[in-house]
Amino acid sequence: MKVLVINCGSSSLKYQLIDMATEESLAQGLVERIGIEGSVLTQKVEGREKYIVKEAMKDHKDAIRLVLEALVDKTNGVISSMEEINAVGHRVVHGGEKYNKSVVINDEVKSYIEECFKLAPLHNPANMIGIKACEELMQNTPMVAVFDTAFHGTMPEEAYLYALPYELYEKHGIRKYGFHGTSHKYVSQKVAEVMGKDIKDLKIITCHLGNGSSVCAVKNGESVETSMGFTPLEGLAMGTRSGNIDPAIVTFLMKEEGLTADEVTDLLNKKSGVLGISGISSDFRDIEDAAYKEKVHRAQLALDIFHYKVRTTIGAYAAAMGGVDAIVFTAGVGENGPETREEILKGLEFLGVKCDTEANKVRGKVREISTTDSTVKAFIIPTNEELMIARDTLELISK
Amino acid sequence: MKVLVINCGSSSLKYQLIDMATEESLAQGLVERIGIEGSVLTQKVEGREKYIVKEAMKDHKDAIRLVLEALVDKTNGVISSMEEINAVGHRVVHGGEKYNKSVVINDEVKSYIEECFKLAPLHNPANMIGIKACEELMQNTPMVAVFDTAFHGTMPEEAYLYALPYELYEKHGIRKYGFHGTSHKYVSQKVAEVMGKDIKDLKIITCHLGNGSSVCAVKNGESVETSMGFTPLEGLAMGTRSGNIDPAIVTFLMKEEGLTADEVTDLLNKKSGVLGISGISSDFRDIEDAAYKEKVHRAQLALDIFHYKVRTTIGAYAAAMGGVDAIVFTAGVGENGPETREEILKGLEFLGVKCDTEANKVRGKVREISTTDSTVKAFIIPTNEELMIARDTLELISK
Repeated sequence: MKVLVINCGSSSLKYQLIDMATEESLAQGLVERIGIEGSVLTQKVEGREKYIVKEAMKDHKDAIRLVLEALVDKTNGVISSMEEINAVGHRVVHGGEKYNKSVVINDEVKSYIEECFKLAPLHNPANMIGIKACEELMQNTPMVAVFDTAFHGTMPEEAYLYALPYELYEKHGIRKYGFHGTSHKYVSQKVAEVMGKDIKDLKIITCHLGNGSSVCAVKNGESVETSMGFTPLEGLAMGTRSGNIDPAIVTFLMKEEGLTADEVTDLLNKKSGVLGISGISSDFRDIEDAAYKEKVHRAQLALDIFHYKVRTTIGAYAAAMGGVDAIVFTAGVGENGPETREEILKGLEFLGVKCDTEANKVRGKVREISTTDSTVKAFIIPTNEELMIARDTLELISK
Repeated sequence: MKVLVINCGSSSLKYQLIDMATEESLAQGLVERIGIEGSVLTQKVEGREKYIVKEAMKDHKDAIRLVLEALVDKTNGVISSMEEINAVGHRVVHGGEKYNKSVVINDEVKSYIEECFKLAPLHNPANMIGIKACEELMQNTPMVAVFDTAFHGTMPEEAYLYALPYELYEKHGIRKYGFHGTSHKYVSQKVAEVMGKDIKDLKIITCHLGNGSSVCAVKNGESVETSMGFTPLEGLAMGTRSGNIDPAIVTFLMKEEGLTADEVTDLLNKKSGVLGISGISSDFRDIEDAAYKEKVHRAQLALDIFHYKVRTTIGAYAAAMGGVDAIVFTAGVGENGPETREEILKGLEFLGVKCDTEANKVRGKVREISTTDSTVKAFIIPTNEELMIARDTLELISK
C-alpha cells in the first residue's frame, strides 16, 4: 500500500509518497510559485540527485499533474504507474468543531471544509483547491482529510472556551481550536513507545517549536490543552507572531497608530514575535548568532522571552493535567536547538526534570535528554506529520 | 501619627483614617454619586451606628470637605481637628515606568501622573482630581502617591515585554505593568510574617481574586510576574473582563459583528468574564448559587473556567520562579470562597500542596488551609491595601 500525502498552500504544495508496509518515504517534493512566473517542482529521493522540473503551472491541477508525472518518471520516479497510489491523504488546517478525527472525503466533508473558510481564511481554501485538483486527476483513488485541529477535539470545555459572552461561541464558533494537532499526536504516541509505556498512563507535554510554535498537554493519549487558539496567533511568542498579549493592545494600537483591523492583524502576525523584539530576523539561527556571538541585547531578549513563555506554559500545563511524566521537544527549533531546550528546562527542576547537557548535544534524533535521576523525563522526538497523515489515511481506507 | 488614605474614583471616593501607632482603622467611609444627584457619604466607626450624610456635592472638593467634616464631627467624628491628620496617602492606579515605589507628591510627580493618563484613562484622571482637591483643602499636609503598578516594577524584561515590535514599547510604553500591586505586596509580606520566615527566602504566589482578579509571583519579596498587563483586562477570567483571549478575536469581532474599537473594548471589559459565560451575573455568589443549588450548566462552566485559569496560572508562576513555597488567597472571592479555593487547589497536589477541607471552611480570616503534610503551604490572608498605603505614606513623610 502506498499513500500520497499532500499539503497544499495558496501558491505552494508539499508532497510525500509513503510505502505503508515499511512506513518509508519513497519520495518527497515541493512545488513552488504555482500560478506565478517561475513555477518549479523539486523532488527528493533517498540516495539520488534532486530532480528539478521548471515548467509553467497555471493552477494546482497543473501542479498535481506534474507531481504525478515526477513520481512515475522513468528515470527519476519511484513508481511505475499512478495506479500504485492506493490513497491520498490531504492535510486540512481547520476541521471546525465537527471533525475531531480524520475522515474519508465526500461531498459532506467538502462542504464542511468550505464552511470553515471563515475560521481559516488563509489555509482551508488552499487545502480545498488541492483536494479538488486531486479528485479530477485521480478519480478512483480514495482521499482522506487529516485536520490540524482534530487532535485537540478532546479538550474539555474549561480549556477551549474563552471568557466571552457565550452567544459568541454559539453564533461564530469563537473558541480555542488549537493547531499542529497531527504533530502533537505523532510525537506523543512516539514518546510513549520510546518510554515503553502505554500512552493511556502518561501525562505528556509536547513542545512543537518552529517558526510557528505551540505546546500541547496530552493526558492519557488525548489533547486536553494547547497554546494556539481560535487562530494560530495565540499562545507563545513565535517567529513573527506575537502570541498572547493584553487584548486591549489591539484597539490601543488601532487608535494610537491609526491602523485598520487588517493592518493590526498583519502587524501581530507578521512583524511581531522574535522578529519584532530582536529587529533582526524571525529565524532562530540568526537570532542565536546575534545573541551568543555578537552579544546583541535585543537578540538575547527575544530568546529569553521565547524560552520564558515555553517554560511557563509547561508549568501551566502540568497544572492542567495534575502533573507531568514527560516533556517532548519537536519541530525545527525543538529538534535542532540544544540551547533552546536547555534554557527552557532551566528552572523546571522543581517539577523533577533536569537537562543532561551532554545528552542534549544532538540535533534531529530521538533522544532522552534528562538526567537519569529526573523523575520527569525530557525527550527530543523528531516530528513526522506526513507519516501520521498517511497512517490515518491507510486506517480509514482499510475499513 | 494619623494617616488619611484616599482612593478616588470618577464619581466616588473611599477613605480611611488610620492611627499608625496601633495600625488601627479609626474610621472608614465611602462617598458616592459625586457630581450626580443623590450624593451621599457613609462613614463607619467600630462600635457605632453608620453615619450618613446626604448633601449635594458638585465635585470632589465638596466631597473631601465633607469627609473632613465627618472625621471631626463632634458626635460622629473620631478626631478633634483636621490638624491631627499628619499625612494623606493617595491610591494612584498607574505610575508608568518611572515610579516603582511610592513617592511624596510634588509638581514633578503630578505631571508624571498626568503623563500616564493615556495608560489609565479611567483611573488616573480621577486619582488626580482627588489629589488636587486635597491639596486645596489641606495645604500644609504632606501627600504621598501609592501606585497600583509600583510593586511590579521589579519584573524582569522577559516577563514585562510583549513579543511585539520593540519600537512600540519605546514609543508608547506598551509593556506589562500589572495592577493590584499594593494588595500583592501586603499579603506577600503578611504571609511571610505568618510563616515566621524572611520574605527574602520565599517564593510566594498571591491570588487576588475579586471582581477584578490577578495572580502575582513574588520571589524573595519582589514581584517577578503578574497576570494583569498593559491594562487590567489581561490575565484571568474576571467578573466582567475576558482576560486572555486570542488577540485575533478582537479584529474578528469588529468585522463579523460590525463593532468599533470602543465597542469591542466595552464588550471585553464589561460583558465578558464569568458574566459573559454564565449569562447570569458577575457576582460569584449569584453564580455559585445557580451552579451548586440549581445545577445551571453555564454557571458551573463559568466557575470551572475561572478556577482552571487561576490553577494553570499558579503552575505557570511556579515555573517562572523555579518553584513555590506558599500560595495565598485574598480579596473578596479569595477570602470568602471556600469552594473557590478548594477547586483551584484541586489538581495542584503534584506541586506538594493539598487543601485541608476543614481548615478551609472559614471566611475572611488569616488561616493556613493546606494539610500538615503539604510541602507547599496555602493560606488565606485578608488584604488591607489601605494599611499598606498608610505605611508607605508614614515611611516617606518620616524621612
